Amino acid sequence: MLDGKGDVVPGVQRSEAAPRVVIVGGGFGGLYAARALGGAALAVTVVDRTNHHVFQPLLYQVATASLSPSQIAYPIRGVLRRQKNTRVHLAEVTAVDVAGQKVLLRDGELPYDYLVLAAGARHSYLGHPEWEPFAPGLKTLDDALDIRGRILVAFERAERESDPERRRALLTFVVVGGGPTGVELAGAIGEIACKVMTSDFRAIDTRETRTILVEVGPRILPTFPEALAEKAERSLEGLCVEVRTGEAVTRMEPGAAWIGGNRIASGTVLWAAGVAPSPLARSLGVPLDRAGRVVVNADLTIPGHPEVFVIGDLAACNDPTGKPLPGLAPVAIQQGEHAARAIVRATRGEARETFRYRDRGTMATVGRAAAVVTFGRLRLSGYPAWLLWCFIHILWLIGFRNRFLVMIEWAWAYLRSERSARLITRETAPSGPSPGPG
Amino acid sequence: MLDGKGDVVPGVQRSEAAPRVVIVGGGFGGLYAARALGGAALAVTVVDRTNHHVFQPLLYQVATASLSPSQIAYPIRGVLRRQKNTRVHLAEVTAVDVAGQKVLLRDGELPYDYLVLAAGARHSYLGHPEWEPFAPGLKTLDDALDIRGRILVAFERAERESDPERRRALLTFVVVGGGPTGVELAGAIGEIACKVMTSDFRAIDTRETRTILVEVGPRILPTFPEALAEKAERSLEGLCVEVRTGEAVTRMEPGAAWIGGNRIASGTVLWAAGVAPSPLARSLGVPLDRAGRVVVNADLTIPGHPEVFVIGDLAACNDPTGKPLPGLAPVAIQQGEHAARAIVRATRGEARETFRYRDRGTMATVGRAAAVVTFGRLRLSGYPAWLLWCFIHILWLIGFRNRFLVMIEWAWAYLRSERSARLITRETAPSGPSPGPG
Repeated sequence: MLDGKGDVVPGVQRSEAAPRVVIVGGGFGGLYAARALGGAALAVTVVDRTNHHVFQPLLYQVATASLSPSQIAYPIRGVLRRQKNTRVHLAEVTAVDVAGQKVLLRDGELPYDYLVLAAGARHSYLGHPEWEPFAPGLKTLDDALDIRGRILVAFERAERESDPERRRALLTFVVVGGGPTGVELAGAIGEIACKVMTSDFRAIDTRETRTILVEVGPRILPTFPEALAEKAERSLEGLCVEVRTGEAVTRMEPGAAWIGGNRIASGTVLWAAGVAPSPLARSLGVPLDRAGRVVVNADLTIPGHPEVFVIGDLAACNDPTGKPLPGLAPVAIQQGEHAARAIVRATRGEARETFRYRDRGTMATVGRAAAVVTFGRLRLSGYPAWLLWCFIHILWLIGFRNRFLVMIEWAWAYLRSERSARLITRETAPSGPSPGPG
Repeated sequence: MLDGKGDVVPGVQRSEAAPRVVIVGGGFGGLYAARALGGAALAVTVVDRTNHHVFQPLLYQVATASLSPSQIAYPIRGVLRRQKNTRVHLAEVTAVDVAGQKVLLRDGELPYDYLVLAAGARHSYLGHPEWEPFAPGLKTLDDALDIRGRILVAFERAERESDPERRRALLTFVVVGGGPTGVELAGAIGEIACKVMTSDFRAIDTRETRTILVEVGPRILPTFPEALAEKAERSLEGLCVEVRTGEAVTRMEPGAAWIGGNRIASGTVLWAAGVAPSPLARSLGVPLDRAGRVVVNADLTIPGHPEVFVIGDLAACNDPTGKPLPGLAPVAIQQGEHAARAIVRATRGEARETFRYRDRGTMATVGRAAAVVTFGRLRLSGYPAWLLWCFIHILWLIGFRNRFLVMIEWAWAYLRSERSARLITRETAPSGPSPGPG
């Protein structure tokens, strides 16, 4: 064995007598909470329905086949393997029994003394759940692999399609929602179509691909300063993306989406228009905000239950000025660390502290080497913003994977428009007839 | 765009007037044939049911989660993108109409002037097709992802299983077949269980995992010199693998395999006991050998059809001494290059040449850093053999991916027992109830 680490650490038990902390969700919030509890005399259990943590900010890169799953996802067991007081539970949580102090699983239950609920959000179809089969959203690694399969198979079908109209539809991609996810998705699709794959096909010219980004609001990236949103829009146009603001998707049907009154024949419609908190929020029996998030106390606990913490996208939390905190990784990370601290203090009988978010800015990328970043007063766009974006994202990865390797992999993927991830497996191919079982 | 290459090469058409060459299969044989025809005045079409070439010798590494798919598979379009005379067709071939000179697809047909049939082999259940659902084989990337899901989920279930008997069954892996694939699979499972994952779990000690390698013959690696097979067997034992030679699997049922008269309760049985040529062989209407492979002429064509070449695992081809050639990558590669040369010569009205295989030796690895290699008179085992094995496999990758990057990735994966590939996605999780939808 060249890697001795595995040998010296036996799979020891943790003390079941210690106070039990259950953390629901292996996202940024849950994982940072778990890591902050590593040294404590607690019996920590992390429950997730998948066995991996996903680096969400780069999920769109997997969906567009620029990166492979293992470059942005990491087994939760791997992250926590050295924490002898921590257990990882691969299971689906169906509800929380706050009165009984236990988490209900699809196949069992987990009693707790302290609960950290970090179940996050799924995408929401804004009252049109029937649209989901036509327009998949992007929240999990499975979503990303499904979307990748749809995009790649669309090009494969177009290459073999003799009817010009059907071919045009196969080469038309509609992305619904002009937030960071929609902008990144549309930008990345435009990029592989107009830049990366131009010489891969013979019957089609991928540069004729039409990518339409639909945003109901007056402009894309509403949470960003206007000047930066404009820069992003120009970069998108440089990637042959049609940006259509002030327009809404009104109808969806197989093979087409209606934008306003116009029917757009499209083989691939992707949804990035909204998220909804996990339904677990409702099972807590406490007030939710209009979006369905749990309204938490200043210390991130829920009314009447100082042992229950809700963090991340699931929590409705305001900054001191009363402004709601955005659903971003840094917020979830800081809340996770706060919850962990609060639990340790509680076991010591110390008083609670108010959670304060330290804003470190927001970022988005638009395809390769084009990004917008706002850091308090500092505002960057284009290449420098993208470099900063990479640097900071790699910083966030500390402890998840070796930063140096990730840097090589990503740099490589960006510099050479990595093609090796463009694999269609039976698993990633969308259901329904495809050019072949491949 | 930092990678300008994509821009300068438009997606041009090739001349449809030129003689049409259809290559069925994107494995080593088909791909090397296609690349050898790159410069020729021919209209080449490569058909495969998947969009990627798989580096088969490392498939077991994906199945055991040491490498990720994109490290050993590469889009066929990517390999051939600069060959303007070559088209890639994602489709399933159902039969060959030799008289009509066309390849029949599930959804169309491809006429040809020259055919290179390199459809390879699938695993064979030696007269027990009903065993397939219980014991998946390893031939494609999908197979590997399915097997990976089964192995990882087995450990996850064991971690949550309270009944000691069921837990023992979940931690028992049976690999059927002592050839290179079975040896590599068993070795890699033993390795992740006894070395890599030892500190990942709390309720189970993965070193109690039982891996049983069953070989009906008197020894493992029958095609290798006895001394090397013995070394391999010792390395396997060092990885807690039980090697049981001279024993056969007699029965399979859900959750158990019968070895001779003994029922072995096992959650995961894997099949590596035999391969069968693609059923396309039968559609040629020419004599097949006992194994079902096409008996080819000295120039690799079939009787009565000098325009049809059969290569790789699908061809029954003897060396000058009459000894049948093994089903190895180097054979397929040399045959593909020979078929390409023969086609070019035929278009020039030049005479056929006899195919001669230049033996460059055989290799197998048993887990990390243990390998056996035979090169004519040279025989190596252990670490030096493994280094040579890596080096030669990387040489084979020329043109497929940047060798330097692959070397970094593999070296990294080997040195640190790469964990990041240990992802269970809905796609990789086996069908049937699992601890969660993850």
